[in-house]
Amino acid sequence: MRKVKLGLLGLGTVGSGVLKVLRQNAEMIKRSEGLDINVGWVLVRDKSKKRAVEIDPSVLTTDAQVILNDPEVDLVAEFMGGEEPAFTYIREALKKGKSVVTANKEVIAKHGDVLEREAEKSGAGLYFEASVAGGIPIIKTIKRSLQANHILKFMGIINGTTNYILTRMSEEGSDFNAVLKEAQRLGYAEPDPTADIEGLDAKFKLSILSTICFRNQVPLENVYCEGITKVTAEDITYAQQLGYGIKLLAIGKKNGNRIEARVHPTFIPLSHPLCAVRDVYNAIFLEGDAVGNLMFYGRGAGDLPTASAVVSDIITACQNQGGYHHRTGMDQEDVIFEQNWVSRYYVRMLVYDRPGVLGEIAGLFGKHGVSLESVIQKNRGDDASLIFITHEAHEQFMVRALEDMKGCTAISSIESMIRVER
Amino acid sequence: MRKVKLGLLGLGTVGSGVLKVLRQNAEMIKRSEGLDINVGWVLVRDKSKKRAVEIDPSVLTTDAQVILNDPEVDLVAEFMGGEEPAFTYIREALKKGKSVVTANKEVIAKHGDVLEREAEKSGAGLYFEASVAGGIPIIKTIKRSLQANHILKFMGIINGTTNYILTRMSEEGSDFNAVLKEAQRLGYAEPDPTADIEGLDAKFKLSILSTICFRNQVPLENVYCEGITKVTAEDITYAQQLGYGIKLLAIGKKNGNRIEARVHPTFIPLSHPLCAVRDVYNAIFLEGDAVGNLMFYGRGAGDLPTASAVVSDIITACQNQGGYHHRTGMDQEDVIFEQNWVSRYYVRMLVYDRPGVLGEIAGLFGKHGVSLESVIQKNRGDDASLIFITHEAHEQFMVRALEDMKGCTAISSIESMIRVER
Repeated sequence: MRKVKLGLLGLGTVGSGVLKVLRQNAEMIKRSEGLDINVGWVLVRDKSKKRAVEIDPSVLTTDAQVILNDPEVDLVAEFMGGEEPAFTYIREALKKGKSVVTANKEVIAKHGDVLEREAEKSGAGLYFEASVAGGIPIIKTIKRSLQANHILKFMGIINGTTNYILTRMSEEGSDFNAVLKEAQRLGYAEPDPTADIEGLDAKFKLSILSTICFRNQVPLENVYCEGITKVTAEDITYAQQLGYGIKLLAIGKKNGNRIEARVHPTFIPLSHPLCAVRDVYNAIFLEGDAVGNLMFYGRGAGDLPTASAVVSDIITACQNQGGYHHRTGMDQEDVIFEQNWVSRYYVRMLVYDRPGVLGEIAGLFGKHGVSLESVIQKNRGDDASLIFITHEAHEQFMVRALEDMKGCTAISSIESMIRVER
Repeated sequence: MRKVKLGLLGLGTVGSGVLKVLRQNAEMIKRSEGLDINVGWVLVRDKSKKRAVEIDPSVLTTDAQVILNDPEVDLVAEFMGGEEPAFTYIREALKKGKSVVTANKEVIAKHGDVLEREAEKSGAGLYFEASVAGGIPIIKTIKRSLQANHILKFMGIINGTTNYILTRMSEEGSDFNAVLKEAQRLGYAEPDPTADIEGLDAKFKLSILSTICFRNQVPLENVYCEGITKVTAEDITYAQQLGYGIKLLAIGKKNGNRIEARVHPTFIPLSHPLCAVRDVYNAIFLEGDAVGNLMFYGRGAGDLPTASAVVSDIITACQNQGGYHHRTGMDQEDVIFEQNWVSRYYVRMLVYDRPGVLGEIAGLFGKHGVSLESVIQKNRGDDASLIFITHEAHEQFMVRALEDMKGCTAISSIESMIRVER
């Protein structure tokens, strides 16, 4: 039986969950994994604060250096969130040869490459399963179970808050703002919901996930990002009539040395497995060149689901001798980050209801190389709307076509442009 | 770069797929995993037979001993299928200290415990990811990513043939026999379909999966098994009207030291993620005490998906020094295999259409401790049917109630009894 002394940085939702799982399943972990894991230190801001879990006050400290400088601490687990001071602490721990387990998507997305070089130098391990999709085991699965595949493509629902909002909007026909308020009341959305609804949380996770899938560093600045604030109840209604649902998808594709990584609201067919992923659930649908289509579905947040991933990483870190770095095995090719990707598009516009309008607008699409799959006119008179689904077109052609339409007297306003995947 | 010499036993669908993946992705496996994997030998029955893949004739042999006795062979991968001679060859390889990767569900379900003791003795590894759910990475995921959880329950669609048949029956209203013939024509069902439609294939996989999930050997004789041959188009229609789909589920539950493992047709709510798993796709839905609900979805068969799992195991075997045995970490508790499980039930019967019938039959259910959630009468006169959904009841009470009803003059025949899960 190996004794392990753990230093925890942070005792919020995830930290408390980790303590609960380590206690509740301690006997099983001893028997099955041969590890006696003890929490030696917990870094907190305020030692006197009431905690959701019982904790021996003598292990609490407000000084990270006490933990980082304790030679008996084998492993540091970080759940402070945010870039600093988490990044500095993780780097220091790795420098000292202590392996690190973290749930911190921001630190890994921004500094994963630096931290992994640090880990390789000292021989420590760096583990971050919990940073993407919470309890869903996706990082280790790609690295250790799908390593015989080139991952060609993935589409993920990796932000629970926005999936909850879009689910409620779809099932109740409600407006974005009304549902957001309800989500805040229920604790599914933060008081400041920006990071979720503008897609920034998904962007961090997409950067990490595409780096793992494509074996190439995909820096944040190469990830396109658009949130869900402009999705309207009307778009959702029309989507359903056309046989689609709307999801905030994190999409990664690799074709030769071209990588695309983008977060945006997306039409996907109602029959697609991702469409059945409701409420705060997450899912990652991916395609490997050998395995074909796979989907992983589960809870993307919450104390215990996230703790499941963290404690699994802790066990792996204790059992691995050499550490586990995702840059090991990176292709490091000269990749090009594709901005002018190919997609289908849904476009909704208000038009002046007069003969010849449709022909005029269809002509403008055609002029820019965008061909149409279907057109529907909704309503007459002042409310007349045209709804287009295009065939596959390059993003830049689409943007230029819409730009050109701003001068078109037949169009009152272009209301929405949402990408379509199948 | 480590050079590895591989001996393959069998060159059918899976064997050919493994050769394809090893060739197609050889460069990536060298670069990312540091392994130069070479096929040194392939055991075949007939050297002169035309093959789906190109193969150097000098590596073909009809004599397994040539492979098992070659000291340069590091690792043996077996895809012959069936119990013998596969079991004997795998055991010999392990005895000689060669690690073994296999896709053979029958050998692992029947002899996994013996083989793992053999492997532990010699220090070789035994890997069988491909034996359950083909390309879906489930075995290693449970062992290496969900090891902080007690798995409480799982429900799996782990036989593609029966899922294809039930999907077609549901979507087209066709009869079992008509769809079976169509599935045979398309190659989704074998000329002799018994192992699939009677649930035996799923039974092998369930034995393996529940052994892994519950950390206790679950022998085949403790797995209840019922196939789909008695499912009728009428049952499927009524299921849909009641808000359910019918799937052949492999169910495992653990409660304290009681384990239940059963394969049978099952009603599940249309809103359940498993209900959206169509055609030949497989999926495993599970519940861990920390992670909550998870689902893994993908292709359960086919040359390349299965090869994805096999080649992943080959890479893992080459990288692991100490071997990887599922018995390591087994609880080995004194478990009780539950036969008298608790379930809800759907019962359909033809009755004589006269006043008081419903009360009489409801009384018989009640007499045996089975309470009813809903009753629907369909049709009148000679076609009068009663359709019951019960509350939770013990299997034995249900069986006794149905036995008792055989003497009931109000009932013309009991047509179906199908278990209901939520």
